[in-house]
Amino acid sequence: MSLVRFSKMHGLGNDFIVVDTTRGGRTDWPPELIHKLSCRHTGVGFDQLLLICPPNSSDVDFNYRIINTDGYEAGQCGNGVRCLARFVRDNKLTNKDLIRVQTVKTLMELRIKQNGQVTVNMGEPILDPERVPFVTSARSIEYTLDLDGSDWVKVMVVSMGNPHAVMVVDDVHSVPVKEFGPKVQQHPCFPEQCNVGFMQVVSPSEIKLRVCERSVGETMACGSGACAAVVAGRLQGLLDEVVTVHFHMGDLQISWQGEGHPVMMTGPATHVYDGEITV
Amino acid sequence: MSLVRFSKMHGLGNDFIVVDTTRGGRTDWPPELIHKLSCRHTGVGFDQLLLICPPNSSDVDFNYRIINTDGYEAGQCGNGVRCLARFVRDNKLTNKDLIRVQTVKTLMELRIKQNGQVTVNMGEPILDPERVPFVTSARSIEYTLDLDGSDWVKVMVVSMGNPHAVMVVDDVHSVPVKEFGPKVQQHPCFPEQCNVGFMQVVSPSEIKLRVCERSVGETMACGSGACAAVVAGRLQGLLDEVVTVHFHMGDLQISWQGEGHPVMMTGPATHVYDGEITV
Repeated sequence: MSLVRFSKMHGLGNDFIVVDTTRGGRTDWPPELIHKLSCRHTGVGFDQLLLICPPNSSDVDFNYRIINTDGYEAGQCGNGVRCLARFVRDNKLTNKDLIRVQTVKTLMELRIKQNGQVTVNMGEPILDPERVPFVTSARSIEYTLDLDGSDWVKVMVVSMGNPHAVMVVDDVHSVPVKEFGPKVQQHPCFPEQCNVGFMQVVSPSEIKLRVCERSVGETMACGSGACAAVVAGRLQGLLDEVVTVHFHMGDLQISWQGEGHPVMMTGPATHVYDGEITV
Repeated sequence: MSLVRFSKMHGLGNDFIVVDTTRGGRTDWPPELIHKLSCRHTGVGFDQLLLICPPNSSDVDFNYRIINTDGYEAGQCGNGVRCLARFVRDNKLTNKDLIRVQTVKTLMELRIKQNGQVTVNMGEPILDPERVPFVTSARSIEYTLDLDGSDWVKVMVVSMGNPHAVMVVDDVHSVPVKEFGPKVQQHPCFPEQCNVGFMQVVSPSEIKLRVCERSVGETMACGSGACAAVVAGRLQGLLDEVVTVHFHMGDLQISWQGEGHPVMMTGPATHVYDGEITV
């Protein structure tokens, strides 16, 4: 048994406990423990556990592990990494404005702005269907998917490290997300399934977005989904270089100069409380 | 803004934050603040806030406020008061084994057992239909309720300070709780509605129980529901004086000597973690 100190944080309602292990502390987090801690009634309750670890190379400031509630380690989380940036600054683990962190899958660059928001370099979007992966005979900007033989939808296909299908809709509030989401998600053209974004273009600099995430369902906010939607909208000529993306709990700002450039995401990270638990 | 220290606790999955205000601290808890704190994604997350206050008379050890997530102050909570007992002992606010606490509605006696479980004197059951309240022309042990004109159920009617209807069922797992619960709850014979218990008698000393609580729906465990079920079962001649009540997350032990005696409830109280939040 050991005492673990943690901070509860959230990024637009996507919530985390953040644990600093740079100066020692528990390194062993078996799935049963994660599952128990993540219960919202009998544990602490969170979507993901974020572990801040000592850097494993001189290229980065921290290593960083993202553990889902089933114990699986994720490669990236746009809302989580903003919380991580705020945590390391607020707890004085670094005094840098530009922070480089290494996950199990990718290296991420984060910049803390004066207003406390965090800008994350989300990397270049992947548009090559084979690398998304998306099964098609020819690369295009938009694809028509046949759903159940009776219905069809037009989707744009973008990977931000995870595959996204983006649909333009007239009204994001009334669109039947629960009906279309799973059908597109599990469509055979996406061999690894996909996240499904429903985008309402309010103006060239403003969209409303709802996202169904793989194996989760609709979430309050999806950082990579916001990036994918803006990339898709830009390629269709619908959006400017800088776009405000409205989610239920608040906004993200996404900017993308175009092919060959990374997508930049700026948004809030909120500290809720500090806790300590014996595990 | 002030820093509030709290403990997160639960009684059979019914979860609370417990705040000690006996030595000062915030006394003003407006509904908007409670609502914000109770959110499980952007706040701390809990079913109720338990405030431990200085005693307002020499008859009691503590006053005690139970605040629901809508800001309304409740009169009693069987799972919560066990957590309160553990909190005041573990934090050395008292060294007594027998603790008397006063809520906005009732005085409660709690006894801490050597195994850490807590016994609560839940008071005498109210069987007089008028006082439950339950509308009937004659007092009986069991009543037949007409549901929608097409279906009917037999219920026993008991108040433990709040009205309960108890039904005996063959199999608590397969009973359509979501269908029958609301129909019985809102039956015109219960002018203040009621909690609805579905009781499977395993043996004279053991029952399985599911409870639909008023304006909440089915909950993981309901202390007063366990008391009401055992009283009802005792009056039917189905149960012994001491009965183990199985809920999803664990057990309560209920004992009742019969009319004129209080119902005693014994069960666990679990400390999860300590936290501090600026509000």
